[in-house]
Amino acid sequence: MAAQTILFDFTLDSAKTGDEKQRQEVAKILRNELEHVFPQLELAYSMESPENGYFSVLHENKATIITCRIFQHGLLTVNVEYFLPAGKEPIMSFDTMRTMELILRQKLDSDRSKYLPPIKRGGYIDIYMTSSDERIIEYDIDKLVYEVRSPFQKIQILHSKTLGNMLLLDELQNIAESDLIYTETLMGRGIENYEGKEICILGGGDGALLYELLKENPKHVVMLEIDELVMEACNKYLNSICGDVLEKRRSDQYEIVVGDCVEYLKKFIGEGRKFDYVFGDLTDIPITGAPVGVDWDFIRTIFEHSFKVLKPDGKFLTHGNGTSCTESLELFEEQLALLKPKVKFTTSKAFVPSFMEEWLFYQVSFA
Amino acid sequence: MAAQTILFDFTLDSAKTGDEKQRQEVAKILRNELEHVFPQLELAYSMESPENGYFSVLHENKATIITCRIFQHGLLTVNVEYFLPAGKEPIMSFDTMRTMELILRQKLDSDRSKYLPPIKRGGYIDIYMTSSDERIIEYDIDKLVYEVRSPFQKIQILHSKTLGNMLLLDELQNIAESDLIYTETLMGRGIENYEGKEICILGGGDGALLYELLKENPKHVVMLEIDELVMEACNKYLNSICGDVLEKRRSDQYEIVVGDCVEYLKKFIGEGRKFDYVFGDLTDIPITGAPVGVDWDFIRTIFEHSFKVLKPDGKFLTHGNGTSCTESLELFEEQLALLKPKVKFTTSKAFVPSFMEEWLFYQVSFA
Repeated sequence: MAAQTILFDFTLDSAKTGDEKQRQEVAKILRNELEHVFPQLELAYSMESPENGYFSVLHENKATIITCRIFQHGLLTVNVEYFLPAGKEPIMSFDTMRTMELILRQKLDSDRSKYLPPIKRGGYIDIYMTSSDERIIEYDIDKLVYEVRSPFQKIQILHSKTLGNMLLLDELQNIAESDLIYTETLMGRGIENYEGKEICILGGGDGALLYELLKENPKHVVMLEIDELVMEACNKYLNSICGDVLEKRRSDQYEIVVGDCVEYLKKFIGEGRKFDYVFGDLTDIPITGAPVGVDWDFIRTIFEHSFKVLKPDGKFLTHGNGTSCTESLELFEEQLALLKPKVKFTTSKAFVPSFMEEWLFYQVSFA
Repeated sequence: MAAQTILFDFTLDSAKTGDEKQRQEVAKILRNELEHVFPQLELAYSMESPENGYFSVLHENKATIITCRIFQHGLLTVNVEYFLPAGKEPIMSFDTMRTMELILRQKLDSDRSKYLPPIKRGGYIDIYMTSSDERIIEYDIDKLVYEVRSPFQKIQILHSKTLGNMLLLDELQNIAESDLIYTETLMGRGIENYEGKEICILGGGDGALLYELLKENPKHVVMLEIDELVMEACNKYLNSICGDVLEKRRSDQYEIVVGDCVEYLKKFIGEGRKFDYVFGDLTDIPITGAPVGVDWDFIRTIFEHSFKVLKPDGKFLTHGNGTSCTESLELFEEQLALLKPKVKFTTSKAFVPSFMEEWLFYQVSFA
């Protein structure tokens, strides 16, 4: 079940759109052209104002409704909206849209125009995601594979035709089968040497980091994940990125503990247990204007406890945010600067396919 | 100069939306909520029909116009549109949108809802591109670096905050500074051995393929590119992917010929000149329902001539299309199957950052 909204716009000469008579002329040309596509077109309503230009509502049998606006600054927008029952062909094909755009551009003497692919609205599977810098990205998702609400979050596995299965937590993209580069950049494959090392993963419920680390022959990895259901979902549907580590849960070389990582970090601190590497594979850095709120408190708590279980030459490795989220990344770095004893950091970055954007990663060590 | 269109939608109980009285009730709740964001809201127009539900136009000072539709199948769409002068703050912040969505979802007893990041319309730089399978993707483009119309095509260099400079030909994304993986997959780096080999590139005006091939110590590379202006633009703005090969144009190891590659292939055939590798780095495979038209004729011409200049154990390497364009890829493979003498092929694929999708590449040799 979905409605479709198709958006066209045309840049016009503002001398033309600034004049009421000429706006009427533009509206007439537009209507004539629309009638070729929608033969039963009727005008339902129109509104004029010297400050805000022209607006009208056209419709065909009240089913397809077209709203038009002529802004006096030199822009015409046309929005076409109709209901498309499942399995039916769209009213406007790509060829029809393209043709209508080209003819109108010519007839309106417009030097730039644009139409967007129809926006599908009301679908139960959400195919539109927002990048960390608030850009709209439509995914080729064709199936909701699995959905469950755990005590901690909403867990979804969606299938993308080209990215494979994707894990979403509370509707945020986490990792997909296409994203080995994410794990490799987080762990600095080829740069860090994990052989014989002791490692602690905070979070990491998708299992990909643990799976890749074990290929590097560490002495031991302990993974602290709070959400049993995330691990069950990933074990079943993200097998290609986590192998059997979530199925087996432990071996001589690793152990997965289900629980609150802060509690376990406190326990390790009490025992004097230390690691060569601690991974922060938890929630993303919040996108906020100030470093306040529970998410930032959590990040500070993680920092403080993590560095207490790190050997003097150890490293804390974590993901940051989209490289375009400079404000949020700066706040993150400010929190690092507050730590005592002092720390220093390097960064690396990679374009992550399922994020459709470039992501920043941090390598933090004692200064 | 741009208008903003913000699209919200809410899934409702269809028992509710199927009834005119209850639709009126939904419209009332919606209007009350909208008045919190737009205090001077007025109803300009409304329309009802048993088959097509409810439609209304609300506005604030005729500047912000809001259209609402209640489809009787259980969907409410709300479109907010207004003009945003350059440098001004948007009327609705992300927080306002998110809050409005959450409150309305609750008040309308909706079990799913969605809002999209505001769609920016009328901008001279086009930030919305369409993937090969007709998905909408918003880029983080912040600057038109260069634009020129050559005798062959419109050439643009756009700057993306995270992908670097991007080359667009006739408004189609070609290659960006982020796309080494594209060139490496096209040439099969690590798989093919170019040392001491003779190579012909058809097209390749961005210079990236030539630049990477020269690192593999071939005997000689000849590149046949028709568009002088593409090479000038890439030499200037895509330096990081093409080095100085477009600046120098020739060395002992390579030569760039400006001209029609088909004419040169004919000349090579006449001379009996043969290559170990021929690269088809020309136009993408057309997305059409049937293999007809000038683009497909061109592809067939390229095939026929290329295999005539290929040594018996030589390879023809080329890019295909987005992996989700199965129809178009099948047509391409059908054309390969028609060739005489017979050929066989393998494929490889890679997620290309600036395409924001996975791309297919072909390696064709004599059967």
